[in-house]
Amino acid sequence: MRAVPAASPAVPFLRACRRERPSRLPVWFMRQAGRSLPEYRALRERYSFAEVVADPELAAEVTLQPVRRLGVDAAILFSDIVTPVQALVDGIRIQPDHGPVVASPFRTKADLARLRPLEPELDVPFVLDAIRLVRRRLPAEVALIGFAGGPFTVASYLVEGGKSSDHRHTKALMYGEPDVWEDLLDRLAGVALASLRAQVDAGAQAVQLFDSWVGTLSEPDYRRYVLPATARVLEGLAGLDVPRIHFGVGAGHLLSAMADAGADVVGVDWRTPLDQARQRLGPDVSVQGNLDPAALFCAPEVLDARVRAVLAANAGRPGHVFNLGWGVLPATDPHALLRVVELVHAEGMEQGHVHAEGVEQGHGHAEGRERP
Amino acid sequence: MRAVPAASPAVPFLRACRRERPSRLPVWFMRQAGRSLPEYRALRERYSFAEVVADPELAAEVTLQPVRRLGVDAAILFSDIVTPVQALVDGIRIQPDHGPVVASPFRTKADLARLRPLEPELDVPFVLDAIRLVRRRLPAEVALIGFAGGPFTVASYLVEGGKSSDHRHTKALMYGEPDVWEDLLDRLAGVALASLRAQVDAGAQAVQLFDSWVGTLSEPDYRRYVLPATARVLEGLAGLDVPRIHFGVGAGHLLSAMADAGADVVGVDWRTPLDQARQRLGPDVSVQGNLDPAALFCAPEVLDARVRAVLAANAGRPGHVFNLGWGVLPATDPHALLRVVELVHAEGMEQGHVHAEGVEQGHGHAEGRERP
Repeated sequence: MRAVPAASPAVPFLRACRRERPSRLPVWFMRQAGRSLPEYRALRERYSFAEVVADPELAAEVTLQPVRRLGVDAAILFSDIVTPVQALVDGIRIQPDHGPVVASPFRTKADLARLRPLEPELDVPFVLDAIRLVRRRLPAEVALIGFAGGPFTVASYLVEGGKSSDHRHTKALMYGEPDVWEDLLDRLAGVALASLRAQVDAGAQAVQLFDSWVGTLSEPDYRRYVLPATARVLEGLAGLDVPRIHFGVGAGHLLSAMADAGADVVGVDWRTPLDQARQRLGPDVSVQGNLDPAALFCAPEVLDARVRAVLAANAGRPGHVFNLGWGVLPATDPHALLRVVELVHAEGMEQGHVHAEGVEQGHGHAEGRERP
Repeated sequence: MRAVPAASPAVPFLRACRRERPSRLPVWFMRQAGRSLPEYRALRERYSFAEVVADPELAAEVTLQPVRRLGVDAAILFSDIVTPVQALVDGIRIQPDHGPVVASPFRTKADLARLRPLEPELDVPFVLDAIRLVRRRLPAEVALIGFAGGPFTVASYLVEGGKSSDHRHTKALMYGEPDVWEDLLDRLAGVALASLRAQVDAGAQAVQLFDSWVGTLSEPDYRRYVLPATARVLEGLAGLDVPRIHFGVGAGHLLSAMADAGADVVGVDWRTPLDQARQRLGPDVSVQGNLDPAALFCAPEVLDARVRAVLAANAGRPGHVFNLGWGVLPATDPHALLRVVELVHAEGMEQGHVHAEGVEQGHGHAEGRERP
């Protein structure tokens, strides 16, 4: 049962995901809700992170804050990528400013039994209630994005016991016990798929699968050890007619593999210029990105130049959602975010007029441009 | 005045750097000296990190420890990439397990005056004395590598005040005040060049320029903001006839740019299979790498398979120095390192016999192989 129609011709974000011509270039920011906003910090003085996530009213409020302040074209549910597995596995908590901590890490075949299938309406009803609230309160032209953690990244938290700079336990399991690894990723793919389907049923109009740490793998390893599980999630959503966005940080070497997993839109970090990303992804995939979050700490005119360089690298090709190349840094000044939104809205379509009819045309033009 | 001849036909490491056929495939490990070795930890119970670096006898001893225990084909001086600037700038200290900390970060043009040219024999005599001691004690077939920090990475420590996950102050300076940035990198290039020239004069037979964090930049930004300074260092060493190795972690997208800066050997991290790296680097550049440091935590037979996969990806092409794709992790079992050395020495040349005469031949053969 779908709560809302999947597409609306008036929603710039959805049109851009589908490589249709939007009325303005859509922009949103990964981690736009949260610590960079004073209204979020004020709310956090009264409630813990866990309380905000678990309370639909609070989660909806935090989700809506950047829409009100910044005028972004999409909201993304305020939650955490481990929230669904937290409902299934005892002893997972999220330590603010650090990330998930798992009391008993997953290391053996026996641990697999700790991961039963997710029943979203029973296990994470507050997530779905928050989505319903947000949809009701969101302006019609602003899209709501649901999300889940990618199988590798969630597995890495479960196996390492928390954030890791080397993923050594994860890799020891992946290389050393490929059957256990495959089973673990299959279960996590099932959790992500169930969660995303339920979020779409509740009103999410697009989904983003964050496999944040997958860039630590080589492309052959990604294709062998992760892509099958990712494809199960993304292909499992194919019938729902919602754009499927896939993103990893430092994953420029995996872009084409991530598209092969079934993404309609691939998030690109700032290390890969969008023209290079386009070459790897081909004409059928949209791109999301890719301003360096550090650029928000530059002087205003320098920030403007960096925004324009992103626009120039895409050269008006259809299928571009403006975003950062990774999440908003906590110390970011919200005025800088607002400046980016206004500039993207004012100038984002300027280069696009002659190219909106076909990718080929836009591509040919782009190759004649100077690299920004 | 050179203390030793630059090349020796009997030194496998130097032959591999020059794409000549070595008697065995050479192997060493970034951070092979240090916390993974019990004899280092025993010594550190009596001396601080700073004391070890500043005392030629202690630094030489720690440099030699992995040669004795592991039988590696190269030693690399035990020191730090900020040691030269530490001699020039007040208030820099190295916090073990964390990295350099700079009391007053560099943020403005006025800070440039704090960086005078390095006079190695006056500023860091202990570095050169340690090199002389090591050369005297090292077996003739084991090469000694000198090293310096790359301009971007050292600049990032000076500008951020320490290690950073986002390099936002560095990028604000780089993008916002390109003239100050260029001057800073030029000064740091001068420091690195002076240090490396002096290390070669003292007996280093190869040099490695570690620009560890440069992978945070896109290729266009690397070419514009960093490559000129790097080229000044590497080209300034051209007349000395020592192999010049250049390395950054997560820098697969920069490999060809790093070779363009003048490297004879490019270090490749584990994210880029060596066959792909070869394609980007062309036939005239040697490669160093690229076992994932996390593989050393796998079961022995799994570790062996990962070592063989690296060998298979290179497919016997000349110009390969076996190494990790980044430094040895502190918790690594030295027995795993020894196992890698023995396997590389036993099997490293097996695939190489028919290819040693020409890169073209080896390359053609490699493309017919399965990707490991």
